[in-house]
Amino acid sequence: QGILERLDAGEIVIGDGGFVFALEKRGYVKAGPWTPEATVEQPEAVRQLHREFLRAGSNVLQTFTFYASEDKLENRGNYVAEKISCQKVNEAACDIAREVANEGDALVAGGVSQTPSYLSCKDKTEVKAVFRKQLEVFMKKNVDFLIAEYFEHVEEAVWAVEVLKESGKPVAATMCIGPEGDMHGVSPGQCAVQLVKAGASIVGVNCHFDPDTCLETVKLMKEGLQAAKLKAHLMSQPLAFHTPDCGKQGFIDLPEFPFGLEPRILTRWDIQKYARQAYDLGIRYIGGCCGFEPYHIRAIAEELGPERGFLPEASEKHGSWGNSLSMHTKPWVRARARKEYWENLKPASGRPYCPSMSKPDGWGVTKGARELMQQKEATSEQQLKELFQKQK
Amino acid sequence: QGILERLDAGEIVIGDGGFVFALEKRGYVKAGPWTPEATVEQPEAVRQLHREFLRAGSNVLQTFTFYASEDKLENRGNYVAEKISCQKVNEAACDIAREVANEGDALVAGGVSQTPSYLSCKDKTEVKAVFRKQLEVFMKKNVDFLIAEYFEHVEEAVWAVEVLKESGKPVAATMCIGPEGDMHGVSPGQCAVQLVKAGASIVGVNCHFDPDTCLETVKLMKEGLQAAKLKAHLMSQPLAFHTPDCGKQGFIDLPEFPFGLEPRILTRWDIQKYARQAYDLGIRYIGGCCGFEPYHIRAIAEELGPERGFLPEASEKHGSWGNSLSMHTKPWVRARARKEYWENLKPASGRPYCPSMSKPDGWGVTKGARELMQQKEATSEQQLKELFQKQK
Amino acid sequence: QGILERLDAGEIVIGDGGFVFALEKRGYVKAGPWTPEATVEQPEAVRQLHREFLRAGSNVLQTFTFYASEDKLENRGNYVAEKISCQKVNEAACDIAREVANEGDALVAGGVSQTPSYLSCKDKTEVKAVFRKQLEVFMKKNVDFLIAEYFEHVEEAVWAVEVLKESGKPVAATMCIGPEGDMHGVSPGQCAVQLVKAGASIVGVNCHFDPDTCLETVKLMKEGLQAAKLKAHLMSQPLAFHTPDCGKQGFIDLPEFPFGLEPRILTRWDIQKYARQAYDLGIRYIGGCCGFEPYHIRAIAEELGPERGFLPEASEKHGSWGNSLSMHTKPWVRARARKEYWENLKPASGRPYCPSMSKPDGWGVTKGARELMQQKEATSEQQLKELFQKQK
Amino acid sequence: QGILERLDAGEIVIGDGGFVFALEKRGYVKAGPWTPEATVEQPEAVRQLHREFLRAGSNVLQTFTFYASEDKLENRGNYVAEKISCQKVNEAACDIAREVANEGDALVAGGVSQTPSYLSCKDKTEVKAVFRKQLEVFMKKNVDFLIAEYFEHVEEAVWAVEVLKESGKPVAATMCIGPEGDMHGVSPGQCAVQLVKAGASIVGVNCHFDPDTCLETVKLMKEGLQAAKLKAHLMSQPLAFHTPDCGKQGFIDLPEFPFGLEPRILTRWDIQKYARQAYDLGIRYIGGCCGFEPYHIRAIAEELGPERGFLPEASEKHGSWGNSLSMHTKPWVRARARKEYWENLKPASGRPYCPSMSKPDGWGVTKGARELMQQKEATSEQQLKELFQKQK
Repeated sequence: QGILERLDAGEIVIGDGGFVFALEKRGYVKAGPWTPEATVEQPEAVRQLHREFLRAGSNVLQTFTFYASEDKLENRGNYVAEKISCQKVNEAACDIAREVANEGDALVAGGVSQTPSYLSCKDKTEVKAVFRKQLEVFMKKNVDFLIAEYFEHVEEAVWAVEVLKESGKPVAATMCIGPEGDMHGVSPGQCAVQLVKAGASIVGVNCHFDPDTCLETVKLMKEGLQAAKLKAHLMSQPLAFHTPDCGKQGFIDLPEFPFGLEPRILTRWDIQKYARQAYDLGIRYIGGCCGFEPYHIRAIAEELGPERGFLPEASEKHGSWGNSLSMHTKPWVRARARKEYWENLKPASGRPYCPSMSKPDGWGVTKGARELMQQKEATSEQQLKELFQKQK
Repeated sequence: QGILERLDAGEIVIGDGGFVFALEKRGYVKAGPWTPEATVEQPEAVRQLHREFLRAGSNVLQTFTFYASEDKLENRGNYVAEKISCQKVNEAACDIAREVANEGDALVAGGVSQTPSYLSCKDKTEVKAVFRKQLEVFMKKNVDFLIAEYFEHVEEAVWAVEVLKESGKPVAATMCIGPEGDMHGVSPGQCAVQLVKAGASIVGVNCHFDPDTCLETVKLMKEGLQAAKLKAHLMSQPLAFHTPDCGKQGFIDLPEFPFGLEPRILTRWDIQKYARQAYDLGIRYIGGCCGFEPYHIRAIAEELGPERGFLPEASEKHGSWGNSLSMHTKPWVRARARKEYWENLKPASGRPYCPSMSKPDGWGVTKGARELMQQKEATSEQQLKELFQKQK
Repeated sequence: QGILERLDAGEIVIGDGGFVFALEKRGYVKAGPWTPEATVEQPEAVRQLHREFLRAGSNVLQTFTFYASEDKLENRGNYVAEKISCQKVNEAACDIAREVANEGDALVAGGVSQTPSYLSCKDKTEVKAVFRKQLEVFMKKNVDFLIAEYFEHVEEAVWAVEVLKESGKPVAATMCIGPEGDMHGVSPGQCAVQLVKAGASIVGVNCHFDPDTCLETVKLMKEGLQAAKLKAHLMSQPLAFHTPDCGKQGFIDLPEFPFGLEPRILTRWDIQKYARQAYDLGIRYIGGCCGFEPYHIRAIAEELGPERGFLPEASEKHGSWGNSLSMHTKPWVRARARKEYWENLKPASGRPYCPSMSKPDGWGVTKGARELMQQKEATSEQQLKELFQKQK
Repeated sequence: QGILERLDAGEIVIGDGGFVFALEKRGYVKAGPWTPEATVEQPEAVRQLHREFLRAGSNVLQTFTFYASEDKLENRGNYVAEKISCQKVNEAACDIAREVANEGDALVAGGVSQTPSYLSCKDKTEVKAVFRKQLEVFMKKNVDFLIAEYFEHVEEAVWAVEVLKESGKPVAATMCIGPEGDMHGVSPGQCAVQLVKAGASIVGVNCHFDPDTCLETVKLMKEGLQAAKLKAHLMSQPLAFHTPDCGKQGFIDLPEFPFGLEPRILTRWDIQKYARQAYDLGIRYIGGCCGFEPYHIRAIAEELGPERGFLPEASEKHGSWGNSLSMHTKPWVRARARKEYWENLKPASGRPYCPSMSKPDGWGVTKGARELMQQKEATSEQQLKELFQKQK
């Protein structure tokens, strides 16, 4: 059954977690570029991560094609062997995802994300051409549906949806925005409306913010759709990092990004709370993004086990709410084998010299320059230098 | 070259990270029992983790035989298919480790750890028989050297070393103790002396405490050996969790163990500091235990890159001290591409409602009962209940 | 010169600090009732506190008549000797304030605050009669101007202003509300408009929230007045406690209120930041409320010293920005004698087992019951019990 | 009854709080010099503070003669009118203390503290002459007993005790040291032994550390005395600031000293815990030092009310364990009117951008230079510069 049949039937669809962060920690992705050449270089590592998510309960395996547009791979490609073409990366990603999906009952979703072309002010035709190139691979490899994800500007997201819709396959669209809306100031409600009008059957948010913030944003999207009398399925794939202190741009601007985020990682219990709240809000496509490891996805599946009627394979190696501790030899550890314990725990950081919140930084950038950069990312060395000189 | 040849020549030997915690998060190990039946059930998951550590710079691959003694597997075995024998688990662990080690320049170490038999007061002969059973597999599979690790009582550790020495292979021994010494009150210095006298060529600590605490303990071991005019190589494999608030028993007693430890996870920069301090203390076998992921091991290899003269394969996907951010389009993120930034960062937890430290808990246990349980863990349901009744 | 002449001339007027909290710590006021019978019982303690504020730079000495309405004194009066009448308390407060004001250049302001009569739903005539009783004393003692302060409902504040205006003296009005507005949901902008229309020449906020929150609220008041094309002087007298985690009701609902607020106390540097921001916002009557000690008021006077052209008497015993440390014998303490040091200090709490923020509590109260109680405080034992029974 | 009669009879004697910090906040003492010229300049402010401590339960009023030795007043005296002689300051301090003591049942104690003469290496005769000058005033004014307090070096403390003993009056001696001992490395136990042998009848610690640390130090003193088979009454007057992160030198070296200590201030409940622990340790002279306000002293008196059989006057304005909230109109505030609530509260700082602990600073000072300075404080500008040049 396809994604829409499942959602239309009221099923909960569980997404997967963030590949770039997980594979960076395993040694296969470079932070900064965040590109997915590992699909060609080390396919077994990518395959293994897909397997873990499948086993943890994912119903959708996203092709590992994040930032795999041609312009991006070129732009940041100097550390990757020249011979790895954009096409090869995308094809390998599809093959691996399909191989693992066939081991279970999962769908394969081909994904595109925001492009340097848009950020450097290329026009609609040029930007659409970039998406179309990836779409050709997805069609050739016959993915089950398509996702346009990680867009900061609804304008570009709409273009992406329009291209993906050419395929005739179902399209989901998620933006990496918070309650304040996109980088041009379009509200979440308006973003959702535009995406649905462009052809998306599923809309929501991914990345950049923690579950609390993402759910707040999806709520605004839902209200926007209701006001516009439009219908769409809702989707959320937040960070597995606590980010109550983010600004509009999300976790990129936190001083801890990307190499000091550890103290912010969500526990499995934080995830269970998220899954429940997402469900209560009416979201039925519930997954994760950066920071989500397989056990976080399993936590979604376990929290919603009662609604779904079954547990994922990986729950064989997990006791609900800590009950695998019930045989521990120390009574005070056995006492942790219960829901109220983990629900109420306020976990300590073990870092008494560190604060609990950070101020997002902008490195002395004036507000004007900052906003300019947020709206259209400067992409060349030269542009950056000029911008910086100007605002000093 | 063998482990002792390398250490005798002054080489730095990098260990690997903790398998039970890493594989728990990937869905293959059950917290509580912490047993390694995955070597038989899901060998590709174990193999992949070995590969990641190898790629990250590990010179030693430990067989995934933690808690794989026959008494432990039986004791906690009710969730594992009956047909998986202790022998099979150990054999598979050796085969997988060897297969991956051969892909690089790594040694394979067979490992044993503390047993329920000792904790339930079995005598020396019985306990030694347990170790001997695992050793037989290690001999058959011809591992390169042996490690007795995760012992809370030096008495049992000595028995393990004595058994392992029967093989004629080099033996390393690490205890999971802090500066206060073992559960019977034997000081770290005395523990080291007894282990070396029993035949260990390498001694140190693993698990239970963070790097700061572990290094303090190894320092005491070093001083003990010097006072006794004994020589041995030093080894440390700490947690990748900050535990300044632990008691004698280590992180087991922290309220966050084992499902709420996320805010305590060390960053790669914390690890680099640890690697440097370990090196300065004279430790040459430097690795990790629970919480260590491949990128933590890579951080050891990168910090000691200048001394070793080379970087691990996984550094292809990593810029030293964040320099992979130097091409980022946002200037304030580019500004993070430098050593002083990450060295001085005090990472926030994003958890303003949580404290920075916890009180280790004992669930209302009287000091007497608690110590009793620490010295000899009660293993049966009945014993636990009685103990508890008594102290109420 | 009167208060309005000063403000009209563009002078900065510095208020005083919170008497009930300061005198509670000195042993003369009971937390809970917070009534000012000390004016009769221990006049020298009240006089001394007035002197300290005068010396610290206060241009206004408020009569210590907080909660000194007849209904309040009766209502909570069982621990005060019967013979102390409402009139006596108010008269003594006026005499003491005038005595000290004459020692310097300060004005005396008579103050009224919200009444139990209003909260128990007495009508306008009855409530006004309560204010009029206090006003009679203020007229007899000829205070310089009048303040209606600490009102949670603009309706009652307007009544108070109307009564005070009968005197012909200038009237200031401050509400203890945050950006969400009063307890009936009237916005700060609307509150300001109503108060000015009722006759207040000075409007603003006092108590319940920290400086950041109070300034945000005054900003909304300012915008409300501008939109209505009304003119008034602005005033702020916030808490000297950090309360970023408050709800609508302010610090009363924080679990630390009132006996565990110590970790939240503002430093003198926090106050200097507040004074500057208040000034920049156009506020010219700048003082404090609960938590403000004399050194906090001095910090306002020192921050605005350049604008005012002089320092308060108490600055003889203070070095600007820590410069009294410049003679310290330890170089690392001498290094603290500079502005950037104190401006950038992130002071530690010394409390690693405590969080940085709290959730305001409502003790299991349903939202409905809670709002009911906030709108009209239940005043009798019986009412409370019934309310509680109902919502369980 | 004299101090020794009371202590010998097993009475609890409650000390007072720290004058320099309390009067700095009121505007009468300058931080840095910390000298008590206010006894002459503003006697009514000093008198009022004495009254508040008396009312709060103090059985001893210490003359406000801290740092009132001739060498100190000269050394730091340039901001004080020349005409105020050392003798005048000390005489006024005695007169004020006696006047207030006569209003109740309190004793007057004359106090001396460490001198610049000792720190600049003057010899025994010279240093003793400094103490003797103050003692002459104390004899003339006939104080009830004498306290040598705030000594970092036991050698100087012994000299002080020897001088004070010349008077024939009882002598108490407290050092501002932690468990690591005095600045020359003499252990607390040895310090206590030397002080008792020099003639002190009461020994203990004051200032520099929080109650937990001070009690640990007094415990070591007690054990030292027991080992030496000496008898003395025990005394503690700690800070009212949490300082778990201090080094050997105490709170002076914390980055927050002295103008950013607010988040560390102890609550009244922290004080009650301290009073109970001090009592249980056998300490019978229980008071406070810097940071102690009258309500902190009252908390000692209330905690030990059951043992003493009465409450202080200021308890009229206080309900035990928050019971003055039991009439509050909001049920969730009423719920705070109980012991378990306040005992278990973990008060939040309201400062999510601040850490919970600080590293004591030394401003880049080498360990050698630092220790040198700690042992003998450099007192001249020239010495400091040289020292600093040397270690750079």
